[in-house]
Amino acid sequence: MSVYTPINRPQLEAFLSLYDEGALLAFSGISAGIENSNFFVTTERGEFVLTLFEKHAAYELPFFLNLMAHLADHGIPSAHPIADRHGDFLQQLNGKPAALVRRLTGASPNIANLQQCGAVGQVLARLHLAVRDFKGHRENDRGYSWWLAVREVMHTRLTDSDARLLGAELQFQRQDRFEGLPRGIIHADLFRDNAMFMGDALTGVIDFYYACDDVFMYDLAITANDWCSGRDGSLEISKIDALLAAYDETRPLLPVERRAWPVMVRAAALRFWLSRLYDKHFPRAGHITHTKDPDEFKLILMQRIEHSSPL
Amino acid sequence: MSVYTPINRPQLEAFLSLYDEGALLAFSGISAGIENSNFFVTTERGEFVLTLFEKHAAYELPFFLNLMAHLADHGIPSAHPIADRHGDFLQQLNGKPAALVRRLTGASPNIANLQQCGAVGQVLARLHLAVRDFKGHRENDRGYSWWLAVREVMHTRLTDSDARLLGAELQFQRQDRFEGLPRGIIHADLFRDNAMFMGDALTGVIDFYYACDDVFMYDLAITANDWCSGRDGSLEISKIDALLAAYDETRPLLPVERRAWPVMVRAAALRFWLSRLYDKHFPRAGHITHTKDPDEFKLILMQRIEHSSPL
Repeated sequence: MSVYTPINRPQLEAFLSLYDEGALLAFSGISAGIENSNFFVTTERGEFVLTLFEKHAAYELPFFLNLMAHLADHGIPSAHPIADRHGDFLQQLNGKPAALVRRLTGASPNIANLQQCGAVGQVLARLHLAVRDFKGHRENDRGYSWWLAVREVMHTRLTDSDARLLGAELQFQRQDRFEGLPRGIIHADLFRDNAMFMGDALTGVIDFYYACDDVFMYDLAITANDWCSGRDGSLEISKIDALLAAYDETRPLLPVERRAWPVMVRAAALRFWLSRLYDKHFPRAGHITHTKDPDEFKLILMQRIEHSSPL
Repeated sequence: MSVYTPINRPQLEAFLSLYDEGALLAFSGISAGIENSNFFVTTERGEFVLTLFEKHAAYELPFFLNLMAHLADHGIPSAHPIADRHGDFLQQLNGKPAALVRRLTGASPNIANLQQCGAVGQVLARLHLAVRDFKGHRENDRGYSWWLAVREVMHTRLTDSDARLLGAELQFQRQDRFEGLPRGIIHADLFRDNAMFMGDALTGVIDFYYACDDVFMYDLAITANDWCSGRDGSLEISKIDALLAAYDETRPLLPVERRAWPVMVRAAALRFWLSRLYDKHFPRAGHITHTKDPDEFKLILMQRIEHSSPL
């Protein structure tokens, strides 16, 4: 992430005094990611990641923090939020809502190998099983109506070619084909940089801040588009086979889900093409910013339009 | 408002070069309000208010700006957004979405007299008529599910007395009594500080950034709670009569709306009690902040619970 909100040692010490994790030893800003301000924090009792929430208001955060706790309690490799002395996962630091989680070990793969694609497929299926008894709900705020809102605010800024592709794809996606597909809480952003590995073992899934109620197959499509795309945007057969086989072994896909695949991978490509276009046209103020290239997902979308078939 | 994002003269000159309003002569920050950063701007062609949006993302803003244009075009005294040379109401300034509107003349009343209560009642009814052919939609993000989310994030921070009152009122409001009530886009925040007068003539309605789809009667209740409450939180009969009579003359109230009044004034009091409590427990970072007193609306809520009857 980028550090939008700096913190100093006295602020962090006051914050940590609300917890039972011992005195502060060291801290430093983390530069990966684009949504929140994150810091590595070392105390007498361990290694943590501190997040200052830049985009979400405090009232939106119990959903995410409760979900993270639920998933960690159900054996998903993920970070359990730390409760303060009142049992709250959420505090306030330098005018921003803030939470502390235990730091996970591992690193995100630049290019995923087949074992890693299988590992992420399996963990996603386990996640979709684990959320069945989670009580929270959150609407997908990056769904169809968001796509329309983003098009409206960008319409004078798009190239003709982008405007045509976008118009046609919105028209295609508009027909509601998602009836009857299994639904629940999805991660909605399980890219490689949100998974950590030691070798081929998946040690952590992070960044649940797009999690929402939606179709499980859409989550799988989002994951596939990032983990299994080649440089030209096409899906690499061996990787997609590894991902889907591992998923299917843990949560067998229904025929209706297999039929929905071509629409889902296009919807998943569209969603990230749009968000990257939007971030390019409306960059947020910040200390350091990493803007991601929209054309990567435009290419993926065009490939999916040409080449997708049911599973 | 409070100025969260400062701007300098070269930034503002670059911004104004996108418009046809002439060169910059002067500008200054405005300290009233709590949501956005606002500036008075004088150019060769007139007096403007510049807003840098701190809370809303760019994609949320066309709804508000299109609504403001629609209402101004339909004779509601309000500020029409200025279009840039591409016809856009929205630009970007210092990392924030930004819009320019013509500055309205007048001042907000500290205490409203009967003529002013009538004037605001009439303009609210005209607004409810004018939105019938407005095409935009926006969910009320300060409605029942928000009340629940805010309670959850504050639950360890509430006094016992506040927790009891809140629990009982949420239970009361939970029953859906709003079926069949006329709906449309409402202002949702028409407090005295969002209306401007010259003498007793209403010259402007401002701050449409809570506008959303909801029940018209709820809008009237929000307005009444602010304009017509005495120091002890009770409704002043003469003021509420002036407000309702003027509204009813322009848009006659239905019997089902008159029956809903006691629930509506309680819901309206609850909404602002909750948002003020929340802002107190989770204050936002900023250069200058004005936090409003939650107890004012706790008192109004308790008065409405004891004394409301159908109209």
